[in-house]
Formats: sequence, structure tokens, C-alpha cells
Amino acid sequence: MKNILIIGCGLIGSSVLRAISHYKVSKNVFVYEKSKSNLSKIKKLKLPCTIITDFKKTVPNIDLIIVCTPLSEYKGIILKLNKHLLPKTIITDIGSSKEKSHNVIKENLKRGISWTSSHPIAGSEVSGPVHGKKDLFLDKWCILIRESNTNQKHLSILRKFWTKIGSKISIMSSKKHDRVFSMTSHLPHLIAYNLVKTATDFERKQKYELIKFSAGGLRDFSRIAASNEIMWRDIFFNNQKNISDAIELFIKNLRAFKKDIESKNNKLILKKLIDTKKVRKKIIKLKQDISEPDFGRKN
Amino acid sequence: MKNILIIGCGLIGSSVLRAISHYKVSKNVFVYEKSKSNLSKIKKLKLPCTIITDFKKTVPNIDLIIVCTPLSEYKGIILKLNKHLLPKTIITDIGSSKEKSHNVIKENLKRGISWTSSHPIAGSEVSGPVHGKKDLFLDKWCILIRESNTNQKHLSILRKFWTKIGSKISIMSSKKHDRVFSMTSHLPHLIAYNLVKTATDFERKQKYELIKFSAGGLRDFSRIAASNEIMWRDIFFNNQKNISDAIELFIKNLRAFKKDIESKNNKLILKKLIDTKKVRKKIIKLKQDISEPDFGRKN
Repeated sequence: MKNILIIGCGLIGSSVLRAISHYKVSKNVFVYEKSKSNLSKIKKLKLPCTIITDFKKTVPNIDLIIVCTPLSEYKGIILKLNKHLLPKTIITDIGSSKEKSHNVIKENLKRGISWTSSHPIAGSEVSGPVHGKKDLFLDKWCILIRESNTNQKHLSILRKFWTKIGSKISIMSSKKHDRVFSMTSHLPHLIAYNLVKTATDFERKQKYELIKFSAGGLRDFSRIAASNEIMWRDIFFNNQKNISDAIELFIKNLRAFKKDIESKNNKLILKKLIDTKKVRKKIIKLKQDISEPDFGRKN
Repeated sequence: MKNILIIGCGLIGSSVLRAISHYKVSKNVFVYEKSKSNLSKIKKLKLPCTIITDFKKTVPNIDLIIVCTPLSEYKGIILKLNKHLLPKTIITDIGSSKEKSHNVIKENLKRGISWTSSHPIAGSEVSGPVHGKKDLFLDKWCILIRESNTNQKHLSILRKFWTKIGSKISIMSSKKHDRVFSMTSHLPHLIAYNLVKTATDFERKQKYELIKFSAGGLRDFSRIAASNEIMWRDIFFNNQKNISDAIELFIKNLRAFKKDIESKNNKLILKKLIDTKKVRKKIIKLKQDISEPDFGRKN
């Protein structure tokens, strides 16, 4: 691939950029970034790219455009890109929610242009180009979305692209994607935010400090509750229906759990606790986490 | 201190043992452990202790007894210990829930004997003597329980003991303890168990794999949902009232969160997400967690 354009160069965008350079996927990488603060960081870090400030000159020569912005910016970007796009241009994004953004794309993208969505399952509680890493995608899943109107050629090129920078590929519909990740990612984040909020509410009400004793469990949740707020607001709004369903299922189970504790249902509680332990083993076996106790942290 | 007896030599008991030896707190440490599997591991690891199989001979000469078993074993241990205890013997435990176990102690411990409870805020998802560490308590909080009938001399000696092996001390009543830890530890664990259960229920219902995509958030919860089931069953049963209250507060907040997403309440959602981010910063500032992204894990 000769020319790649990354739109939005935060944690994910700058990691894609570093990976393209490291794995020698393309010689020319262009970056479009609207945040002045991010731009100055990119320059300071000397990331291997050419910064562009408008699409006119560059876009017609681009082979692959990767949109790495929050979901709420897609519409504005599409409207700006439209007149410069050619049918051969491959466009993808890295968004964490797919169905609603596909509607935005469908409604706004110029006719005759294909958009093939990606979702690399990689991220962190930190944001911005400083925290990007060339190996962010190494051995991680990258979901590619296939719908009835998917451009098969573009899908195939994107599969090669993500594989080159280290990802494992799984292909599914946007509908399935949004269901799977409502449960494995969106609900956990929302629960983490809600748990930290509940603890601070309780602290305020009881009028004694408790955050300082968070090493007993709360601290684990606080990590993912520190993730980028714009990105997560967009995900919660975009995948609202699936997330609402997941919340209801979660509350149903939580009420059952509460009842089992209140009635001291020894057998059932032990079964629940042992079963979840098995899931942890499965997650480690599937290389979705490391096996060291406490994630290997030293403190 | 000349003679210390550790009853129950799993993760915490064996860590106390290692710390006593490392920080030279006492020359003679005796261990009483009913699990044959743990006993053979203790021998294999050559942990610096004398294993005893009954209390008769040893207990009258012990200065400090540390009970490191699950809460449900306290009664049986007290009944076995009673006739060998002397008023000078200092007894403590490391249990994670206090009010109910204090009742068990009050009802069963021989008159004239003092029991002064401790709770080192240290643990892990792994169990057993193999995983114990001499530095498990280093820079961690250890809660000491003070009630109206607390033996001040014993409390003062225990304060010195935990300080010597690296802990920071905080003193509170069992009632306050159980409230604080219902929120910072017990609820987070129960939520983690429940989240993993909800994901597996959903996986079964949808008939497609999703655990393999758990890197997006679920894996963090699965770690603490892999903690020892006996220990956690006992905590849930013992601190049931406070945990039930915490669950209700959590569900109330979760329903509000859901409503805000459904109504796309942009301002409120952003406020919630930004506020919890601040809590993470506070937790790191309070040295309750490390600041490295992803807990510093490499994968």
C-alpha cells in the first residue's frame, strides 16, 4: 500500500501509525488531527507521518483511510471527505459500536463509495498519542464487519492490513458485533463507572473516607472507569439498546445473587463462585489476559 | 515476641509466616493447618515453621495466635483452643468481615480471654501457601478493630506487630469496618462474580462465543471473580446486611445511568464519566494502585 491516511491520532490512531511504520506496511502515512494539543505532541514525538490540514490535495491519492475518532465525529468527517473520495479508496474505522454508525455512514457517505468497518479489541484507560504503542494490536482480535453490501475486495485487503500489524481476525455482522461487545466490553465499563460512582456516593453519605481502602477490589474497577469519557459516552449512546438489555440481565442476576446470600443458599452460591473461576481460566487459556496474580502488578 | 502460632496457612497465613521470618519478628513460629495438601506444600517450600497437629502442648506457651482461616471455621477453632488459652495470650484473626464473627467469638470464646481483630487489606485471586509473599503487607493498610471491651495492651502490641511487617494501621469499630468494606471490597467482588455469570448466561443464550473477546473489559472483572470461593461465600454470608444495602444503592444508580443513556443526557453522562476518572487519580495518589496503564501488564 502506498498512501495511508489516519484521521484522528489519539491512542489508537497513533498506535496504528507506529505499527504501520514498524511493520513496514506503507511508506507514506498522512495524519489529519483537529486537536492542537495532539498535533504538538505528534510533532514532539516525531511520529513518522505527514500532517495534513485539509483533505483536498491528499485524499484522491490515498489507498486506505482509517478513521480513529470518537463515533460522534463520523458524520462531520464524512461530509468533509465526500467530494474527494474515489470508488477505489478503502475506508475503515476503529469504532467500538457498529450498527448506529453504519446508519450514519449509509445516510451520509457519497454513493458508490465503500466503507468497511474494523474494531481492534485493544485500548487502555489512557488516551492521546503519547500512550500509543506499535504493539497495541499484537495478538489481539480485530473484528471486521461483513454485511450484505460489503466490498469483498476491500474486506480482503483490510484483513491483510490488520494481520500485518499483528492482529487476529474475526468477521461478523454489525448486529452480532454490537451484541457481543455490549456484554464483553460496554457493560463492564458501565458497571465499573457505576461502581465507582456508588462508592463515592456512599462515602459522601457516610461522611467517612473509604476510597483510601480501595485496594480490596474497588481499585480494579477504577482503572476502566478512568477511560476516555467522550469515547465512552458515544459508545453508550450508540449501542444503547443492547446495553440496556445487558443491564436488565445483569440486574436480574444480581437480585438472584442477593436473594441467595440472604437465604444463605450455600450450594448455589458455591456453584456460582466456582463457575466464574472456571471462566477466568478460560480467559487466560484464550490468551485474553495474563495469568500472573494481580495482573503482575508489584504493589 | 517469642512464640507465634498461625492457624491456617494459606495465602495470608503463609505470607504472615514469611514476613515474620523476614522481618525477624519472632524466632519460633508454629503452624496449625488441617489441609493435607497445604501441609505437604509447606514442607516442600521449607517454610520456616514448626508444624503442630494439636493445641495441647503448644498453645499455653504462645504469645500471639493469628487465625488465618475462612470465617466459617472460627467457631470450631475457638472450641478447640478454649481450654488451652491463658489470659495473657494475644489472639487475632485476619478475616474480611467483623461484626458477625465478633458475635461468634463472644458466644464461644472462654471468659477472661481477649480477641483483638485485624484485617490486612491484602490478597489476591490465587490461594494457598505457594502464592504467599513476605511483602504482601508492605505499605498496605491493616485495620485493627477497637470496641468498648478491647484489650488496649493487646491492641498496642498488634499495632507494633503489623507495623513491623510493613503495614500502615487504621483503627475502627467492627460496625464501621463492615460498612467500609462492603463498598470497597465485598460489593466489587460480588459485582465481578455477577458480571462474569451474566456474560456466560448470555453466551449460552445467544449460542455464540464471546468470552474469547473478553480483552475489551470483561477480563479485568474475571480476575477478582476467580478469588477463593469458600472465603467469599463466608464474607457474603457474614456481611449480608451491608452488602444487600450496597447492592440496592448500586442498582438505584445503575437504573439512573440506564435512563440517562436512553434519554441521551449528554451533560449528566459526561459528568459521571469525568467524576469517576478523578477517583482513579485519587486512588493512585493514595498509593492504592499503580499508575501504569493496564496495571502494567504486557499483553
